[in-house]
Amino acid sequence: MNYPPPLQSVIDELGRLPGVGPKSAQRLAFWLLRQPADEVDRLAASLQAMKATIDFCTRCCNIAEMGSLCLMCADGRREAGLICVVEDPRDVAAIERSGAFRGTYHVLHGLLNPLEGVTVERLKVRELLTRLRDEPVREVILGFSPTVEGDTTALFLARTLADVPDLVVTRPVAGLPVGGDLEFADDVTIGRAFEGRRSL
Amino acid sequence: MNYPPPLQSVIDELGRLPGVGPKSAQRLAFWLLRQPADEVDRLAASLQAMKATIDFCTRCCNIAEMGSLCLMCADGRREAGLICVVEDPRDVAAIERSGAFRGTYHVLHGLLNPLEGVTVERLKVRELLTRLRDEPVREVILGFSPTVEGDTTALFLARTLADVPDLVVTRPVAGLPVGGDLEFADDVTIGRAFEGRRSL
Repeated sequence: MNYPPPLQSVIDELGRLPGVGPKSAQRLAFWLLRQPADEVDRLAASLQAMKATIDFCTRCCNIAEMGSLCLMCADGRREAGLICVVEDPRDVAAIERSGAFRGTYHVLHGLLNPLEGVTVERLKVRELLTRLRDEPVREVILGFSPTVEGDTTALFLARTLADVPDLVVTRPVAGLPVGGDLEFADDVTIGRAFEGRRSL
Repeated sequence: MNYPPPLQSVIDELGRLPGVGPKSAQRLAFWLLRQPADEVDRLAASLQAMKATIDFCTRCCNIAEMGSLCLMCADGRREAGLICVVEDPRDVAAIERSGAFRGTYHVLHGLLNPLEGVTVERLKVRELLTRLRDEPVREVILGFSPTVEGDTTALFLARTLADVPDLVVTRPVAGLPVGGDLEFADDVTIGRAFEGRRSL
């Protein structure tokens, strides 16, 4: 049996989402079929409303209302000379929750990963260089996860930004997570924490 | 940082899908935000088209075009006296692919699972009993997976249908999957296959 075309196209469209295979797409489509029509309409309408009103900040590429700056770039009390470069808007949300940072952000929308086809051109690096040329920036913090991709991207940006005069490039220190148990930390984390030890 | 409301409502709506947690919903929403607007519109439009045109068959509860019989019920060459009861429209698709069955179906849309709140009232059992009253049915095949829920539902239906005069209730035999290796079959499957052994 083939599914009727309107059902098959929902299965196909859902199957294009990242991490959703053909079997999950089928399962989701059948689930949606059993829901009241107004709930499915609400999902469809929310997708359309999002695409119609949300875009990326024209300055830092974070999420923002269409055609305007994001909340952080629009906030005049933030330190403009300090940029934290992150992978993803979710990292902006995490750092904002910590309250540890009062500068502005720059969202790359990915990390270098040549094996997966993510090259420099796919990231918002050109936009970052434009900002460094036009804005009086004194420090760039490379706020990437301490992973292979994060390390690669940090190394690449540190070299690229080495030519920019009077600019300090830093990276948050890797170490033991607060509240975590040393016994259960992995070898690399323990190694980094010991390397970065400080006198008390 | 809170996300802008149009983005947050997409995250909320996606998070209501089965098997999609808050983190996956965020990941999907950001991915959709990066896609061209017409691709997201196509997904939204396909959902709306599906809900507008697809419903459940008025006779067997399989998927069908709105207000009409499903392909199998509409096919006059199928044996009307033979009903295969299944959990889900995907089971209809699997059995149709095998070509092993030429009767009609009845889709319960679930299996009994009191711990998950799936009781008899949630399944299309009443619709099945109506068919057995109105149609000249001679055999009902309980085509459920050989799982705890499948066994429970089969036992319940076998008891419920015991009162129907001149009706045979059967179930496909559980055994070794064809092409599978006995060495790697689980104990229960081997047990069932030996129980159901036949003389050659």
